[in-house]
Amino acid sequence: MEFMTGVKKKDDVSVKVLLELEEGSFVKVQGAVHSIRDMGEVAFIVLRKSEGLVQCVYEEGKAAFPLKDLKEESAVEVMGIVKKEERAPGGVEVCISEIRVLSEPTEPMPLAVNKWKMNTSLEAMLNMRPIALRNVRERAKFKIQEAVVRAFRDFLHSQGFTEIHTPKIGAKGAEGGANIFKLDYFHRPAVLAQSPQFYKQMMVGVFDRVFEVGPVFRAEKHNTKRHLNEYTSLDFEMGYIDDYTDIMSMETGFLQYLMELLKKEYQKELNILNVQLPKTDQIPSVPFAKAKELVAEKYDRKIRNPFDLEPEEEVLIGRYFKEEYDADFVFITEYPSKKRPFYALDDPKDPRYTLSFDLLFHGLEITTGGQRIHDYRMLSEKIAARGMTEEGMEQYLSAFKHGMPPHGGLGIGLERLTMKLIGEDNVRETTLFPRDLTRLEP
Amino acid sequence: MEFMTGVKKKDDVSVKVLLELEEGSFVKVQGAVHSIRDMGEVAFIVLRKSEGLVQCVYEEGKAAFPLKDLKEESAVEVMGIVKKEERAPGGVEVCISEIRVLSEPTEPMPLAVNKWKMNTSLEAMLNMRPIALRNVRERAKFKIQEAVVRAFRDFLHSQGFTEIHTPKIGAKGAEGGANIFKLDYFHRPAVLAQSPQFYKQMMVGVFDRVFEVGPVFRAEKHNTKRHLNEYTSLDFEMGYIDDYTDIMSMETGFLQYLMELLKKEYQKELNILNVQLPKTDQIPSVPFAKAKELVAEKYDRKIRNPFDLEPEEEVLIGRYFKEEYDADFVFITEYPSKKRPFYALDDPKDPRYTLSFDLLFHGLEITTGGQRIHDYRMLSEKIAARGMTEEGMEQYLSAFKHGMPPHGGLGIGLERLTMKLIGEDNVRETTLFPRDLTRLEP
Repeated sequence: MEFMTGVKKKDDVSVKVLLELEEGSFVKVQGAVHSIRDMGEVAFIVLRKSEGLVQCVYEEGKAAFPLKDLKEESAVEVMGIVKKEERAPGGVEVCISEIRVLSEPTEPMPLAVNKWKMNTSLEAMLNMRPIALRNVRERAKFKIQEAVVRAFRDFLHSQGFTEIHTPKIGAKGAEGGANIFKLDYFHRPAVLAQSPQFYKQMMVGVFDRVFEVGPVFRAEKHNTKRHLNEYTSLDFEMGYIDDYTDIMSMETGFLQYLMELLKKEYQKELNILNVQLPKTDQIPSVPFAKAKELVAEKYDRKIRNPFDLEPEEEVLIGRYFKEEYDADFVFITEYPSKKRPFYALDDPKDPRYTLSFDLLFHGLEITTGGQRIHDYRMLSEKIAARGMTEEGMEQYLSAFKHGMPPHGGLGIGLERLTMKLIGEDNVRETTLFPRDLTRLEP
Repeated sequence: MEFMTGVKKKDDVSVKVLLELEEGSFVKVQGAVHSIRDMGEVAFIVLRKSEGLVQCVYEEGKAAFPLKDLKEESAVEVMGIVKKEERAPGGVEVCISEIRVLSEPTEPMPLAVNKWKMNTSLEAMLNMRPIALRNVRERAKFKIQEAVVRAFRDFLHSQGFTEIHTPKIGAKGAEGGANIFKLDYFHRPAVLAQSPQFYKQMMVGVFDRVFEVGPVFRAEKHNTKRHLNEYTSLDFEMGYIDDYTDIMSMETGFLQYLMELLKKEYQKELNILNVQLPKTDQIPSVPFAKAKELVAEKYDRKIRNPFDLEPEEEVLIGRYFKEEYDADFVFITEYPSKKRPFYALDDPKDPRYTLSFDLLFHGLEITTGGQRIHDYRMLSEKIAARGMTEEGMEQYLSAFKHGMPPHGGLGIGLERLTMKLIGEDNVRETTLFPRDLTRLEP
């Protein structure tokens, strides 16, 4: 009988180990042939590994492999000797003694993924996504995204949150409205979740604090740089709050944790993408009405609708707080009740406004959150006052009938946060395989 | 201007801190009133917190709050004095001086969630899921599930895997076939992803090793204890493998890591659920055909179909390896090619079989995995040989045309693994909000 006993030791060396080896060491390095630069007597063969590039030097007669047979994007195993070389990435190169080809492409590359910056439109890159992402700068964006998700989970775990997984197919949407994808579920009408809102709230009654990282679906007919029809939402919900500033404080804590993680473990990617990390030590918080006033005054704008915030106003608020407070983020609080879903808690002092907030990052909304109604009677009254029905929400409402602590939470758009972090302006840049009005593939 | 500066300090004490405090300390404890036992002169008020239960003692005249006004499932803040008491959970109780009610239920509980075991059918518990999960044993199952996901991510991260997020709406399913949920995507036909198979393979060309934790959707008309129509899949895919045993070794490493994490951080939940952790130090591996033979011989069964494994055979294989090797897990390898999707790599020595495997846990399949075809020509030929078309798979195939390393991977059903870990026999027990043929709510 054969037995599996755990992870196998591999003799392929990682980039990290390679850089620490002594000159003269014999190594095996596996990777994709990222580029071949044939200089006549010698050739530079650059291998692409998950963690970075490795320069290998091929000298005629020294390597037991004819150079002309080697193709870019082949998967290979290079055997050779470590040599210090200042001009190589990381100051180390491998002098090739042998190359073993593991796999070969059948067609030449349609994109120059081995260039530092691909001279290609976003549209073309999205059309050839599986290939385009092999570019070192392109893939670095998604390592930054990985860090965002890791930070979100690790930080919330340290704060006593429990991770949950809630269904994406359901009988009714959390926010209602028309922007819902519909499907047939064994001859019953069903919808795709616009958010885990109802579920995460119900689970506050079970675990006090919960979070979820998962896809959400919005059938919005927006075709902008900021909108996707499917995106990854970072959601949390916490009970026993004093007020909605507890939520904002928790988000600030997450952002601080994220910046520390990026500095500590993602410096390489920050350098590749030339990222300046934003300031998170103190994030200003300003009420909605006040923010509109400040911007109207400073930039000489008329307030057209006191209960709505236009995208240009968001941009100006971002600019205002950058100029006045050198702030990259700003919390806008107390949104008008009309603009928030029924479950948002109204301000008892002025029920035209809610105890809720958005977080802007350089003028773009990346988070919506706030305190929720926890009292069943209040919730029921608000549903009635809005002319809505409780039908289909019985389970959600049962959690409130049977007691729920004061609570609140938020949702963060992963792709938007990543986009702003790396200074991009189209959310498709930071989505592996975006879904929008025209794009259902790849 | 107000500023958010990070997580606020709360004066609510956690169970962990409470147990470490000196007798006589004054504390504030927030939680839900899990149960009230009125003994006349004194009453025991048990608070339910995320981490566990806290016994509080109410004495007539000592607490500034009339006991009769307190309801079970109210959210409260108890102020009082810490006292050592052997019979209380954790050996500590709180002598109440004051109770502040934060929120009250409007209806009495329909389920005795404060009993150790609820005397209720699974069906009833699923119908009242948001309430039923407040039971301490019920929610413990999902802490174990949290551990599974944490272990999967943390272990794979330590092994150089990159986390990815791939779309759940697409133009075509990865495995094809009829078991796909269909939806209208802005007047285009679309489907829900049955698995991230194509995407994770394409991303091996970018990151070498990737993983994803996310929902998958199967429109299967099975109505069994083992099937769900939406579940959470733990997927990974790794490049530069020598053969498919690299995948099995990696999974064994994950399981070993998981058991260590459970022992270290989830002992409380293991005790609540009375879990005996399975053995993972060495997991036997046996070819499909051999497994059928062993079972036929030992349990005197006829082999009816040499190319299919019946559920009863899986159960017997589980039993065989428990009896003969004291093994909780067993890898069944070299599945018949007919039973595997087109992208599975056939055994060059006998193309009727594939270089693939399932992992059984106490006789139930919890993982399917294997080595994939990495050569474009071979893949193209197999598609043709199966009478399939390349239409709709252009992007997937482009990754192979442009070079892919030898690779393989697997998918683990989160709910099934959790179910087997805690010794349950219905996958709905370990799904927060299951979706099956009849259940679309809550």
